[in-house]
Amino acid sequence: MTAHLARQIYGKSSVRLTKVTRHAERHDLVELLLEIALEGDFSESYLAGDNQRVVATDTIKNTVYALAADNELTNAEDFALVVTAHFLNRNSHITSATVTAAQTLWQRIMSPRGPHRHSFIGGEGEQRACTVCRTRSDVTVESGLSGLRLLKTTDSAFRGFIRDEFTTLSDADDRIFATRLDARWKCTVGVAIEWSAVYERARGAMIDVFADHKSLGVQHTLFAMGNAALDTCPEIERIELDMSNEHRIAVTLEPFGRRNANEIFVATSEPFGRISAVLEREAQ
Amino acid sequence: MTAHLARQIYGKSSVRLTKVTRHAERHDLVELLLEIALEGDFSESYLAGDNQRVVATDTIKNTVYALAADNELTNAEDFALVVTAHFLNRNSHITSATVTAAQTLWQRIMSPRGPHRHSFIGGEGEQRACTVCRTRSDVTVESGLSGLRLLKTTDSAFRGFIRDEFTTLSDADDRIFATRLDARWKCTVGVAIEWSAVYERARGAMIDVFADHKSLGVQHTLFAMGNAALDTCPEIERIELDMSNEHRIAVTLEPFGRRNANEIFVATSEPFGRISAVLEREAQ
Amino acid sequence: MTAHLARQIYGKSSVRLTKVTRHAERHDLVELLLEIALEGDFSESYLAGDNQRVVATDTIKNTVYALAADNELTNAEDFALVVTAHFLNRNSHITSATVTAAQTLWQRIMSPRGPHRHSFIGGEGEQRACTVCRTRSDVTVESGLSGLRLLKTTDSAFRGFIRDEFTTLSDADDRIFATRLDARWKCTVGVAIEWSAVYERARGAMIDVFADHKSLGVQHTLFAMGNAALDTCPEIERIELDMSNEHRIAVTLEPFGRRNANEIFVATSEPFGRISAVLEREAQ
Amino acid sequence: MTAHLARQIYGKSSVRLTKVTRHAERHDLVELLLEIALEGDFSESYLAGDNQRVVATDTIKNTVYALAADNELTNAEDFALVVTAHFLNRNSHITSATVTAAQTLWQRIMSPRGPHRHSFIGGEGEQRACTVCRTRSDVTVESGLSGLRLLKTTDSAFRGFIRDEFTTLSDADDRIFATRLDARWKCTVGVAIEWSAVYERARGAMIDVFADHKSLGVQHTLFAMGNAALDTCPEIERIELDMSNEHRIAVTLEPFGRRNANEIFVATSEPFGRISAVLEREAQ
Repeated sequence: MTAHLARQIYGKSSVRLTKVTRHAERHDLVELLLEIALEGDFSESYLAGDNQRVVATDTIKNTVYALAADNELTNAEDFALVVTAHFLNRNSHITSATVTAAQTLWQRIMSPRGPHRHSFIGGEGEQRACTVCRTRSDVTVESGLSGLRLLKTTDSAFRGFIRDEFTTLSDADDRIFATRLDARWKCTVGVAIEWSAVYERARGAMIDVFADHKSLGVQHTLFAMGNAALDTCPEIERIELDMSNEHRIAVTLEPFGRRNANEIFVATSEPFGRISAVLEREAQ
Repeated sequence: MTAHLARQIYGKSSVRLTKVTRHAERHDLVELLLEIALEGDFSESYLAGDNQRVVATDTIKNTVYALAADNELTNAEDFALVVTAHFLNRNSHITSATVTAAQTLWQRIMSPRGPHRHSFIGGEGEQRACTVCRTRSDVTVESGLSGLRLLKTTDSAFRGFIRDEFTTLSDADDRIFATRLDARWKCTVGVAIEWSAVYERARGAMIDVFADHKSLGVQHTLFAMGNAALDTCPEIERIELDMSNEHRIAVTLEPFGRRNANEIFVATSEPFGRISAVLEREAQ
Repeated sequence: MTAHLARQIYGKSSVRLTKVTRHAERHDLVELLLEIALEGDFSESYLAGDNQRVVATDTIKNTVYALAADNELTNAEDFALVVTAHFLNRNSHITSATVTAAQTLWQRIMSPRGPHRHSFIGGEGEQRACTVCRTRSDVTVESGLSGLRLLKTTDSAFRGFIRDEFTTLSDADDRIFATRLDARWKCTVGVAIEWSAVYERARGAMIDVFADHKSLGVQHTLFAMGNAALDTCPEIERIELDMSNEHRIAVTLEPFGRRNANEIFVATSEPFGRISAVLEREAQ
Repeated sequence: MTAHLARQIYGKSSVRLTKVTRHAERHDLVELLLEIALEGDFSESYLAGDNQRVVATDTIKNTVYALAADNELTNAEDFALVVTAHFLNRNSHITSATVTAAQTLWQRIMSPRGPHRHSFIGGEGEQRACTVCRTRSDVTVESGLSGLRLLKTTDSAFRGFIRDEFTTLSDADDRIFATRLDARWKCTVGVAIEWSAVYERARGAMIDVFADHKSLGVQHTLFAMGNAALDTCPEIERIELDMSNEHRIAVTLEPFGRRNANEIFVATSEPFGRISAVLEREAQ
């Protein structure tokens, strides 16, 4: 044998779970796409094909559905905490369990008579997300959102950057700012967290800042958005933001005898700028 | 030469156009993905590589941007009418021009101070669509939407279908109904159409019916939705609906000693049912 | 009721079928993605939710698997002929059945000891395709391929096209030609067709022509490729080709003090040219 | 200010580079999709919108093209080493530069006259990959491949796994094994590496083992494949493999009065098993 195992992980991906909670006055709907990964000592399965320490990935999937029936499901974080605990409690040879969840954002259909009792619209694009990683000594919960698309038609500039022989970009005073935001945040350990309330507050704060910010660059707006999430959510101790810069390029109309009054653009998807940062709460 | 040309079409696909109209009190934003296809006699380019009757696809793209600067852009239908007319007017050897447009649905960010002046959210999933086909003698406009996702957790049954030796599906009294709707409609020729008003009315009527319908099958609900679009939009003479049946399958929990009280489902994307129909206005 | 039904179609999409035929000396593998669509009189299901004339789409799926067990499966065309016949024979109210198939192109792994008995590689990108449509009076078979990507680094020019005020493209003597080919062909009715042999011959002829052609435009090469398919396949009476022009744009290096010796390009996916034609066999 | 910056990264993603090297007897073609990420002190751009330490992402893109013109491009690893060095040499405030590359696998068209001089086929599915990360003190190169799809119709079993109340899967003696392999390997520092030769040897060894292995589980085959890569490539000190288990589920035909002789399957894409491991060379 030339090799030894430095790390062993396996599990089930793309487990799709829908739970409907049928209250008298309304139905609640949660749809999740889950990934469950287990780490531990499964060496004999790798080295010798002896599977006696392997929880079959089919069993992992079944367990998710059974636990979804046993437990209230209002947010992915609490459910992922249950699922990770289950696998560690059952299997002493498993050292960590990680559950990653992406939640489809169905919205109640609004009618003149108000929000509908049991009918929903949407379910594409932006998702709510979380990752729970539990070891024998620790558990971390990362909450967030992915694929939130935002665009502003003004109040965005980019000036005064480094110029070298490879620089052809001009300073821009008034450009379109289009982005796709992924954000992940970590709340302070040991506090009871209302996951959905934090999510709503953080998301709302970031959107508001994006809309109103006088942006001098993607970095500038990204920081202001993350700072606002920390401001409005004392539960959050750390937030990571990842924003694309999905360029809208002004079309050159001069060769056609026309002037482009900052009106006509081509949206591009390749290449795109990508700006990230991790923000932590300033020590008091 | 073994072959002769029975049909010749070419053009430019995936032309992305963004137009910002900068009113004092608010900015309007239209983002379209366009396809332009020209049909006519370009034989020499195919047979001999002689391109003197070919409008380069790069020129087609440039023309779209120039015409977008020259014309107000509030909906895709009116713009596609302009673009198709341009190519026929310029080129006597072109017999038809077709423009297909898909519009990204950006929505104004809502803040406590009302709809934002220049910031938008969304832009994924459902799209507004149109296809304009213009020949020397005729022009047809098809409007519509694609990728509207809807789900209801009850008021959906499916019973009494054909049973043969390949039938294993049970009658269902109360199932989840999840769908992705594509709809295309054609308005009466010769009437001045408010394209956006018709779109809002048709879309709203179909959503309302979906939400409230006591469905006895996808066909049943599809017809009711299309009928409602015709009811609320006298301009429409014909509507085609295409709805997927994106099954949510109840998970069998009995082997795990649990009962599934119509609560736990797995969403599936393959295979899916697909139901279509064309509805025309009943002659008076 | 405002509406009447002008057309009714439904069926099952994305039915995935794998069949392994276990010969002593080798295993054969066919993987298909199928869509089955039925047209006929199902009015009562649309109008009243009465499903007694509806073959459930779940039954349609089951039927596909049962028929796949009953019949040899070496190509999609012959199987689709069986499936379409089944639904018409069983249901007098069905007027047409259409089966569309896309075949994953798994290739045997080649080892120093020759083609492997039961192990395969590939299965992405290009697909073999067919559509069989059977009515009470007729059956049409369309065969083809989709997603065949080809690129040549030279022997491609584009010159002498129409110039107007929207034209900025220069004549090109030596450009990269990158394309994605979709082709569909129809064989002469009443002849026994070896579907796979025709496919291999048509595909090979089109690839050979692409590689060697002195292209004066996409139209020019497309015609030569289709002509070659007709030349090598007397069974084919009509072929439709659809080719993208996936531009590789030479990067301007002059601002950086460098010359681009036709070497450095950016591949673009939007916008793209799209060239189509239908070629028919010249009458003798 | 509530927040401070714990980490700052930005750069350009989806930079598409094509380089054609025009030898007299043949043209070589390399197509890459690149991501460049810079880490360092850009605080003022985040905190104050002062961009004087920001290399614009547009300049990053331009630099890639200029360096591609200046340097031979035969593999992504050597090019990424040049690009990362450039950004660190130019900018003392940058602490690390990371280049990730995915290479499209175009293959020469084979004709009866041999490999074609300048025409290629393919370019979808599997990709060759690398990531180069350079800091002020260190450089790491990770090579690999992604999206290699493999399938074997026999010689795959899965037995003797853990059974609990959530286990419904039966032992399997003869199942289909379909997978998508991602592999990343790291070569010993300080040795001059022939990146392409290592890639060919590692890839070939893994494919051969997959084809011939008597698999007792995905873990079992994964380890054997990784071990073979280490065996045939002394340059590699560590390899990470990630394999999906893309289930082909035998269709139950008994309800339809038929037997499934291990022949008829449904391919599923959700959920899928996912098996990973890191293998390191055993100390001598």
